[in-house]
Amino acid sequence: MKGGGLEMGTTTSEVAKSGAAKRGAAVVDFFLRVIAIIATLGSAIAMGTTNQTLPFFTQFIRFRAKYDDLPMFTFFVVANSLVSAYLVLSLALSIFHIMRSRAHASRIVLIFFDTGMLALLTAGASAAAAIVYLAHKGNTRTNWFAICQQFNSFCERISGSLIGSFGAILILVVLILMSAVTLSRR
Amino acid sequence: MKGGGLEMGTTTSEVAKSGAAKRGAAVVDFFLRVIAIIATLGSAIAMGTTNQTLPFFTQFIRFRAKYDDLPMFTFFVVANSLVSAYLVLSLALSIFHIMRSRAHASRIVLIFFDTGMLALLTAGASAAAAIVYLAHKGNTRTNWFAICQQFNSFCERISGSLIGSFGAILILVVLILMSAVTLSRR
Repeated sequence: MKGGGLEMGTTTSEVAKSGAAKRGAAVVDFFLRVIAIIATLGSAIAMGTTNQTLPFFTQFIRFRAKYDDLPMFTFFVVANSLVSAYLVLSLALSIFHIMRSRAHASRIVLIFFDTGMLALLTAGASAAAAIVYLAHKGNTRTNWFAICQQFNSFCERISGSLIGSFGAILILVVLILMSAVTLSRR
Repeated sequence: MKGGGLEMGTTTSEVAKSGAAKRGAAVVDFFLRVIAIIATLGSAIAMGTTNQTLPFFTQFIRFRAKYDDLPMFTFFVVANSLVSAYLVLSLALSIFHIMRSRAHASRIVLIFFDTGMLALLTAGASAAAAIVYLAHKGNTRTNWFAICQQFNSFCERISGSLIGSFGAILILVVLILMSAVTLSRR
């Protein structure tokens, strides 16, 4: 459809150029989403499989750390899984935008859900980061001590799993901005 | 039909109607920002002035809880203050949009910064929420005990100060969506 072009009297080549730019943006959008899926899924799996049993134990207690000892880590896994699942679904819309670069309402839907998922993912990642910080440093005022002194590999795992999540946050911000720019170019 | 109008050269009344709708949206945008300023500023002040000294003390120790005993609460105050300051600045652009409803590039700038601030505010609020949860419930596996059992009023204060922050997060999501919808209507 050439509606926008006709309005201002733009030439066919300009309309084609704008369409090509939008298609290019949609392709970048698609690949960014794929990267974000890998990042969030990786984070969820890395956190969700974390568990460490210390090699020494008493008669009654085995010292064992697992991610779901702390509810914030459970939330982290849930948030990452949800965002990952959403991003997989959103690929369909992304492909639709590659094919039909003038699509309009679907981009607003995408911005809306992207923003919601950004908030969810940031909440999960930063709640987990707060606990990871406590696990590493502890806090003397509240007498919460650094469990990382015992659970070394547990702590490395939970720290590492944050990376994917924060990467995906950056990608989502870029995706929202790209959608906004594309929307503004009719 | 609007599409037909765009193709054939929109009539003056349709342009005026679209302009009025945009102006209305810009006014709502302005008031939502003012509410968000109050919410984030309130959160920052409520958290930043929290401190409780227990009525009993030993020769060496006074039991005292202050928000900056925990770095996540400091981050919370910083994040809320920054977002609040940004929102005050953004009011200028919001007023500009009320006056010039066809403004375009400035809306993209606004979406970009709104999204960044949404991420910052969510990070601050949920890191603080994670610690507030720990303070209330403690965690038996890691031997972090619930400090709220001693510091009652401290805990009430820090819990309450989260509300403004989460309210402002919701408002920011709405603002981003509204900007996107306005951008899409040329």
